[in-house]
Amino acid sequence: MAVNLEVARAGELHPVAGVELGWAQAEIRKPGRKDLVLVRLAAQAQVAAVFTRNRFCAAPVIVAREHLARAQSLGSPIRVLVVNTGCANAGTGASGIEAARRSCASAAALLGCEPQQVLPFSTGVIMEPLPLERLLAGLPQAAARLAPDQWPAAAEAIMTTDTVPKARSCQLRLGPCTVTVTGMAKGSGMINPNMATMLGYVATDAPVAPALLQTLVHRVADASFNRICVDGDTSTNDAFVLIASGQAPMPAIASTEDPRYAALERALSDVALWLAQAIVRDGEGATKFIEIAVERARNEQEARAVADAIARSPLVKTAFFASDPNLGRILAAIGNAAVADLDCNAVQLYLNEVPVASNGGRHADYREEDGQRVMRAAEIVVRVDLGRGASAARIWTCDLSHDYVSINADYRS
Amino acid sequence: MAVNLEVARAGELHPVAGVELGWAQAEIRKPGRKDLVLVRLAAQAQVAAVFTRNRFCAAPVIVAREHLARAQSLGSPIRVLVVNTGCANAGTGASGIEAARRSCASAAALLGCEPQQVLPFSTGVIMEPLPLERLLAGLPQAAARLAPDQWPAAAEAIMTTDTVPKARSCQLRLGPCTVTVTGMAKGSGMINPNMATMLGYVATDAPVAPALLQTLVHRVADASFNRICVDGDTSTNDAFVLIASGQAPMPAIASTEDPRYAALERALSDVALWLAQAIVRDGEGATKFIEIAVERARNEQEARAVADAIARSPLVKTAFFASDPNLGRILAAIGNAAVADLDCNAVQLYLNEVPVASNGGRHADYREEDGQRVMRAAEIVVRVDLGRGASAARIWTCDLSHDYVSINADYRS
Repeated sequence: MAVNLEVARAGELHPVAGVELGWAQAEIRKPGRKDLVLVRLAAQAQVAAVFTRNRFCAAPVIVAREHLARAQSLGSPIRVLVVNTGCANAGTGASGIEAARRSCASAAALLGCEPQQVLPFSTGVIMEPLPLERLLAGLPQAAARLAPDQWPAAAEAIMTTDTVPKARSCQLRLGPCTVTVTGMAKGSGMINPNMATMLGYVATDAPVAPALLQTLVHRVADASFNRICVDGDTSTNDAFVLIASGQAPMPAIASTEDPRYAALERALSDVALWLAQAIVRDGEGATKFIEIAVERARNEQEARAVADAIARSPLVKTAFFASDPNLGRILAAIGNAAVADLDCNAVQLYLNEVPVASNGGRHADYREEDGQRVMRAAEIVVRVDLGRGASAARIWTCDLSHDYVSINADYRS
Repeated sequence: MAVNLEVARAGELHPVAGVELGWAQAEIRKPGRKDLVLVRLAAQAQVAAVFTRNRFCAAPVIVAREHLARAQSLGSPIRVLVVNTGCANAGTGASGIEAARRSCASAAALLGCEPQQVLPFSTGVIMEPLPLERLLAGLPQAAARLAPDQWPAAAEAIMTTDTVPKARSCQLRLGPCTVTVTGMAKGSGMINPNMATMLGYVATDAPVAPALLQTLVHRVADASFNRICVDGDTSTNDAFVLIASGQAPMPAIASTEDPRYAALERALSDVALWLAQAIVRDGEGATKFIEIAVERARNEQEARAVADAIARSPLVKTAFFASDPNLGRILAAIGNAAVADLDCNAVQLYLNEVPVASNGGRHADYREEDGQRVMRAAEIVVRVDLGRGASAARIWTCDLSHDYVSINADYRS
């Protein structure tokens, strides 16, 4: 099951000059499926990334952080990404780190750069050894396919429990130039907003100065991948990577004051948010796509705390699955958020346009049939007005269904 | 489904002198089931309670807190408890508080005390009005049944989605006297350790000074009801009440230095812990009873944070449901706990006696068939050695099954 997946399906994907993608069927976990991706970047390309905050982070996350830090300090840019699915290479100790390093070395030898100019990424089952020999054997196949038009196949190759590939593209004018933004991502369980909680790659040919790209990756992640929740579990492997290939014929954007900056940030954020929402639509077992909008909070942190408490509540999520307007569960979730001095009487709750609760209880005009009607829809907006300030936050989540249990009970089989 | 419910079923229940219970079928939500309980206490009885930390707490919680505060400041003891199931009287605003007050006034008139000497409790659906007239009509029936031997029927009358009544009793010698401890509780969803997260009542005839009873209720709750988790949702209504009826012929216990104190605390905690574990065994949809023991933490708070992260992870819970030793999910949950400087290489993970992980990865001796064997059992101990200190914590939880989704999707139907 999934929600309005036609919306989440890749449309036309513009190639990004200076970004080539290749893939292979390396049999990392199962034969007969694409499970390995190589990305080769032009020499001028700049890369910035954010990674999971899980303390049991995977070996490739440790190695990628190390290589990125070196790239920044030495000005020796990242040239290659290696991504495998089927095995997370997480909870694999020293031998997992060695395996991640060897995959970088092998890709570097193949494509003519230093091992430290390669970033490794893995996703799949935790605490199983990476089948390194099969991965290494797949790299030449992937290298042979490197081409700028391989985004659709690459988006397919990074899928795990995803049911559709997720990729998105747009073009925009920056002064006299047309630049491209194209991205891809995969979900679809262990999804909770905390830094980047999945794999996501967004590339543009616009030239961006390294320090500004670092700012951008945080801002874009915070506006997109950090605002989704499927099950409240934060993965060991997740990463969001922003690539600026520098191929568009214009001077680099180096400051947020640059008139081109705002338009580029907006385009990158739009693509990233579309990808993030596509992950929720295709969330494990999802049958509903739910926007949670918290308004009039004292600060953004408390707006987020309330939104997260609603998005993470299993009881709220099962009520959405059942299309049952058991909406008191939303009040209970609001009450569980870490907002110490919340005045429950000031809270107003709406489901789409239907006023549900106010003055600490059911809204005087609320009728069960209105709640029922809204709950039956595949897309629902939960709006909470805290009545205590001027800050707001929106996040996106899905329901908790029988299929979530089935998918995760059977994940390794 | 439920886990080893024969263990969780009430055995012999000793009456507690000075504590009488009565019940009625008041049709609060559905006809033909016990749904209202009255408890009358002897004049000498002392009562202490802890309540939910949910900020959207229910009307009866607000009123009970107020009445308890007054009882303590005026020395005007609580004489009566009124408990209904079928409606939580939460998210009901000012009219909900008025309904809770009227139920106290009616019980007080019936049993000859002040309305402020009555504590109200409700459990059931949130944000629906309390059917006050039916509740009031049921009170005389419940009063007519008041007797010390009605613990089994009362334990049945406080059930909601529970599949068995939960009650427990023991007797102990305190010097020349035999005293009794008897308690009952109900679960079984919206269960997460944070103050008292259900309804629980434990009574003893041992006389205990009011200030010490207040200490005891926190210590006992922290050792029992605050250590369980079914779904990570903290209810709006939960309460744990400790009653010392003062009927045993001995001087009151007034200090933790009293030689009788330790034995009484232990008996109260044993009964409360048994009741709390019974709630987990009968957790909504539970098929596994799981103890999570975190050891060698720097302090108890971080041991609890790690235990809670494991107990709350939907992915860990579905793996237990599937009896699938997908144990990397436990590492991921440990990594998500708020322990900032955790050294993953120092963490050791055991499932019962089977070493699963060490040195940041799979334990050298771990074999899949050992994991499989342990996961198939109905009762499992997850032991995590953090290797960084001398503190420990244990909590109890259950798995996440298809039935959890079914029960909560259909709760109101």
